[in-house]
Amino acid sequence: MDFSLDAGLEVLARTPATLRTMLAGLSSPWISGTEGPETWSPQEIVGHLIHGEETDWIPRARIILTEADSRPFERFDRSAQGRRFTDWSLGRLLDRFSELRAGNLATLKGWRLSPQQLALRGRHPDLGPVTLSQLLATWVVHDLGHVAQIARVMAKQYTAAVGPWTAYLPVLTRPR
Amino acid sequence: MDFSLDAGLEVLARTPATLRTMLAGLSSPWISGTEGPETWSPQEIVGHLIHGEETDWIPRARIILTEADSRPFERFDRSAQGRRFTDWSLGRLLDRFSELRAGNLATLKGWRLSPQQLALRGRHPDLGPVTLSQLLATWVVHDLGHVAQIARVMAKQYTAAVGPWTAYLPVLTRPR
Repeated sequence: MDFSLDAGLEVLARTPATLRTMLAGLSSPWISGTEGPETWSPQEIVGHLIHGEETDWIPRARIILTEADSRPFERFDRSAQGRRFTDWSLGRLLDRFSELRAGNLATLKGWRLSPQQLALRGRHPDLGPVTLSQLLATWVVHDLGHVAQIARVMAKQYTAAVGPWTAYLPVLTRPR
Repeated sequence: MDFSLDAGLEVLARTPATLRTMLAGLSSPWISGTEGPETWSPQEIVGHLIHGEETDWIPRARIILTEADSRPFERFDRSAQGRRFTDWSLGRLLDRFSELRAGNLATLKGWRLSPQQLALRGRHPDLGPVTLSQLLATWVVHDLGHVAQIARVMAKQYTAAVGPWTAYLPVLTRPR
């Protein structure tokens, strides 16, 4: 499947509601459980997604559109949520994520990107040359990867509870 | 996390809305894409979940409650959806799943299961002795595993589109 702005937006626009449906109102062990030391809870994953809305996707797209590959992107801090959102409730995190995502998609749509613009190149500090369409496809996959991660982290809270059925449930033995 | 009926119900009750939020209205490549030969699309996964509502969870729970381990469960047909739902739209599948799940959770709540009943044993045709609470925990994990699978299958449609970012997106290289 080639990247298309319309198809990408279908997924990006749904993610806040998906997270809300999966998580809002769950009791605390579901939202604060992890996969072990140095792994994230569903609540921390929502914080990580907020940080991405603020510092990663749209800021990088803007660099590509205005400066192309003349300077590399800023590095993205993958664990900022551990410091920034310690006293935030899940409800507040979900609200903030929805609000930021809506604003960012409005910005993205407002650019009315042409195929030529989608093919523009930027420079990733480690990966090297990347295109705007690759950045936007990555935004989509990043969302879906974290939705999958949230479901997996929740599932793992019942690893012992399923008893012998572990053998039939690969989600319980997947690495983080 | 030990199994509890209340916590398990929190997840089981959300799954129909989670699937609807993730999938309803998506364009066709997102809902019909797979991970390769012999793997399922998001639409087929919803069919599989319907078949489970009809033939697996509540029927097996009923066997445990009425016959304990005097006879093994029927084997669950893991690929029935490939034959049964070929001409169903995604919307019809989502509606049917919601309806069956609501009915099954009403049945489950109506039983007002005691801790003694949750500890009752049944007999799985391959796994041997299992308890009612293990069956119900497996229902929860089965839901979450398929939510994770749907997100992963969707993500993989953009494997080529992300270009060099594949290296940072483990969801794209996880086996099915």
